[in-house]
Amino acid sequence: MTDRPISRFPVPEIAGLPEDLRSRILAVQEKSGFVPNVFLVLAHRPAELRAFLAYHDALMEKDEGLSKAEREMIVVATSAANNCPYCVVAHGAILRVRATDPRIADQVAINHRKADITPRQRAMLDFAMKVATDSRAVADEDLAALRIFGFDDEAIWDIGAIAAFFAMSNRLANLTAMRPNDEFYMLGRR
Amino acid sequence: MTDRPISRFPVPEIAGLPEDLRSRILAVQEKSGFVPNVFLVLAHRPAELRAFLAYHDALMEKDEGLSKAEREMIVVATSAANNCPYCVVAHGAILRVRATDPRIADQVAINHRKADITPRQRAMLDFAMKVATDSRAVADEDLAALRIFGFDDEAIWDIGAIAAFFAMSNRLANLTAMRPNDEFYMLGRR
Amino acid sequence: MTDRPISRFPVPEIAGLPEDLRSRILAVQEKSGFVPNVFLVLAHRPAELRAFLAYHDALMEKDEGLSKAEREMIVVATSAANNCPYCVVAHGAILRVRATDPRIADQVAINHRKADITPRQRAMLDFAMKVATDSRAVADEDLAALRIFGFDDEAIWDIGAIAAFFAMSNRLANLTAMRPNDEFYMLGRR
Amino acid sequence: MTDRPISRFPVPEIAGLPEDLRSRILAVQEKSGFVPNVFLVLAHRPAELRAFLAYHDALMEKDEGLSKAEREMIVVATSAANNCPYCVVAHGAILRVRATDPRIADQVAINHRKADITPRQRAMLDFAMKVATDSRAVADEDLAALRIFGFDDEAIWDIGAIAAFFAMSNRLANLTAMRPNDEFYMLGRR
Amino acid sequence: MTDRPISRFPVPEIAGLPEDLRSRILAVQEKSGFVPNVFLVLAHRPAELRAFLAYHDALMEKDEGLSKAEREMIVVATSAANNCPYCVVAHGAILRVRATDPRIADQVAINHRKADITPRQRAMLDFAMKVATDSRAVADEDLAALRIFGFDDEAIWDIGAIAAFFAMSNRLANLTAMRPNDEFYMLGRR
Amino acid sequence: MTDRPISRFPVPEIAGLPEDLRSRILAVQEKSGFVPNVFLVLAHRPAELRAFLAYHDALMEKDEGLSKAEREMIVVATSAANNCPYCVVAHGAILRVRATDPRIADQVAINHRKADITPRQRAMLDFAMKVATDSRAVADEDLAALRIFGFDDEAIWDIGAIAAFFAMSNRLANLTAMRPNDEFYMLGRR
Repeated sequence: MTDRPISRFPVPEIAGLPEDLRSRILAVQEKSGFVPNVFLVLAHRPAELRAFLAYHDALMEKDEGLSKAEREMIVVATSAANNCPYCVVAHGAILRVRATDPRIADQVAINHRKADITPRQRAMLDFAMKVATDSRAVADEDLAALRIFGFDDEAIWDIGAIAAFFAMSNRLANLTAMRPNDEFYMLGRR
Repeated sequence: MTDRPISRFPVPEIAGLPEDLRSRILAVQEKSGFVPNVFLVLAHRPAELRAFLAYHDALMEKDEGLSKAEREMIVVATSAANNCPYCVVAHGAILRVRATDPRIADQVAINHRKADITPRQRAMLDFAMKVATDSRAVADEDLAALRIFGFDDEAIWDIGAIAAFFAMSNRLANLTAMRPNDEFYMLGRR
Repeated sequence: MTDRPISRFPVPEIAGLPEDLRSRILAVQEKSGFVPNVFLVLAHRPAELRAFLAYHDALMEKDEGLSKAEREMIVVATSAANNCPYCVVAHGAILRVRATDPRIADQVAINHRKADITPRQRAMLDFAMKVATDSRAVADEDLAALRIFGFDDEAIWDIGAIAAFFAMSNRLANLTAMRPNDEFYMLGRR
Repeated sequence: MTDRPISRFPVPEIAGLPEDLRSRILAVQEKSGFVPNVFLVLAHRPAELRAFLAYHDALMEKDEGLSKAEREMIVVATSAANNCPYCVVAHGAILRVRATDPRIADQVAINHRKADITPRQRAMLDFAMKVATDSRAVADEDLAALRIFGFDDEAIWDIGAIAAFFAMSNRLANLTAMRPNDEFYMLGRR
Repeated sequence: MTDRPISRFPVPEIAGLPEDLRSRILAVQEKSGFVPNVFLVLAHRPAELRAFLAYHDALMEKDEGLSKAEREMIVVATSAANNCPYCVVAHGAILRVRATDPRIADQVAINHRKADITPRQRAMLDFAMKVATDSRAVADEDLAALRIFGFDDEAIWDIGAIAAFFAMSNRLANLTAMRPNDEFYMLGRR
Repeated sequence: MTDRPISRFPVPEIAGLPEDLRSRILAVQEKSGFVPNVFLVLAHRPAELRAFLAYHDALMEKDEGLSKAEREMIVVATSAANNCPYCVVAHGAILRVRATDPRIADQVAINHRKADITPRQRAMLDFAMKVATDSRAVADEDLAALRIFGFDDEAIWDIGAIAAFFAMSNRLANLTAMRPNDEFYMLGRR
């Protein structure tokens, strides 16, 4: 069996991309040793990739309220619910690295109710899963349940908005049949 | 019964927003006669609103492959599947205006299979609904079915990406309990 | 796109209908200015239409326990759950008229949890939705929850029976592809 | 364990019912040796019972296009999908009697796909189940599939309308917790 | 309509089976007057049938914690949820015999919430149904709810394991299109 | 966060187990370097564990029709559909080893439709998933679709029976909250 291509759609050359995207991609490659396919696949539409990255960074690159590892837990749990290979494999790797725990990503992806996480993290993921799979029923009571664990308005917004952002991201990855880079499978497993 | 607030989260004053957002909002108000609540609710997080608007405009403000009205059909059909009041009411209004048809938005929202649309539009909405509700199963065959109706790679990307973007948008609106402005209910009904 | 026909089945002439149905239909036309398609479509089977109307009137034409507007709320919420274009559009119109509220029908159809209704009405619609979508699980506890809001046996029967009657009605409309009259879209919107 | 009551709601005395209902009930009792509980439970609302019976008879008491046994098959299959004890037990008995087959009702109730029925009856039940459980998706193609087996417009209407009528009936029975008479369990089993 | 065969797969002669299976089957035939088809259908794979029977007997042939009739209730309720004709018909018969109640099997199969059973049995079946249909969500709270009714660890294991074993059994029967013997339909109905 | 226990139920000492189980467990430990928790958790019921292992070996320890790696693919795909942590993690490890492919288990667990497998394996997993999640609808047409890829009766039985056996196994693991051994996470990843 030969591997599938990384996208169902045309994939641009890095060299031909707008300067800001090109330098961001090269910086990631410099740091990680490879270019995550999400950059190449979405670069088919530079304006969309630019907005995607800006949104992603606004939600994921901070540590208040929720740790970076907790943000990745939300990504992995909700992406597994959407059966999104790219997001589970890639963000599973990031989660292992950020949590320095080689088991956590598989646990959260398969069944977050059985993962080795705190009750606070369990409440966080229950809410994220509701936003991901049944957002029409999100009620004031759900927010109140989070406040019991110390989540404030900003943290609740983050949980819900990350689940929402990856609802989009999972669908883009499933639309394009985005392929996870081989490098992600082993990252953070020691 | 008094009306609900426009958001579960704090809503900023327009005057205190960053210049770019403020002037965009004032321009919309100038043109429409009111400020759609999505601007005010998401402005609680200016960086996120900026990315949201950039992404939205990249997908919705063009006419190639899909008309602007067809783009709004996708929004209305998928937002109804997610039971999102803001998106159905607001984009229903925009769809009526862009299609100059007072019935189309209600038809598409309630059951797109019975709407007065062309077979090509029906195929477009079937695909958008699959991306919205069962993206894990999106297959090459689904894309082939669209090509029969003349949709090329760019149009297919647009259909799927609009469904994906509003998967996020619906969840943000349901998270915040975003309230549709009263003005939208009558717009485009003649 | 030309409009679809009003039914998948033969539609009789009003002139040839049994006298009781004909005079009822003419009375409605006199009052409303048009003949709602449900009369014409179901008149293909006069005995069935006669029973349908008798049942409908027994449940909908009274004001005790539930107001007439509240009865229509039940129709709109459950018909939207069944994606029934005729019932949502036609009864949405009647709801707007009876509630003298141009927004209520759209709110209840899209997501009754976010509608501008009282907690008592919310409990009423939650129960109606359970009867409509998961009647096997209706339990004594559900009836007890309604009694807290002052609904007595007669009002509870009405809520459940209206949901049940429109479970039939929605399926008849979806079977026949019953088309809503254009007049309904604007009724009650001011 | 003592038996449950026959209804969650008040049950009237036969003697106090309007004459037409009373004589119909007594005629049934005369013929069957007992009064099926549906008469007693729904008689709490005489006008509704009258319409219910008129509708029922219009759909069930004829033999053209579909045999009476086939009509009962539709009732049993769709009522089982709604987990309605009264309808499955009572109409299962009638089906056994009308088909003079002691196994058919259990087979159709548990899984109509495995029942000892003809391909034509299988097509009939597939359509009835779609009307019962997913009527929003009923399409012209579904009707065309029935015509291949010789079902004409009148027969198709009957299949769909019976499924629709019992969608109501099942919900009324689940609302009232209508109890099947003990007599039904053994009827037609020889 | 001729009857379907008892299996989609080859069915061996009893005479040619390994001695232990052959003598077990003949003993059952001696006692019941017929050979239940499950023996013949699964005997296509003697090693699997041997393990199947050993597992079955370990779970079903005892009376502590749960009566034998209660064990059969679990089988009937969960098998009906999986629409498995063989298991519902055959174990329905055994349940009627063991409970000496001609109505209980039909009641439990159609809707266990409405069956004439004790609150303790209702709790038992609620748990069994969760294991059968949503085992991923089984939580410590569910086990605690059973302990309130006096179920200890061993009884809880039995409830869950019987539901699990018949999850397999239902799928084997649906895979092979295993046909219930005619004799089962009347057993225990008096 | 401390780790959860390996079972919700009592776990026996190996030394106290019946000789046959004890020596099997020690042999596995000898070969693998650890005792997979499934042995310890199910050993709470020796007779059940004995039947479980006999059944397991009859289905999994052979190479005809389906390779051993393909059998493990079925386990991983269906166990992921049931959100069973033990089965996905433990059999994911075995699959990686048997397929000598470090990516295959994650791919199959997350979305078998996007895995790097052959069309024949895709058909195999589609059928296994139907047996696992919707066995009531398994039809002759499904078996015919497998025969196109060269699967004969024996191979089809294996696919279906493995899916059925792990339907049980997943439920036992979710019932007991069976914890995967840490060793499995890294096995076969190179």
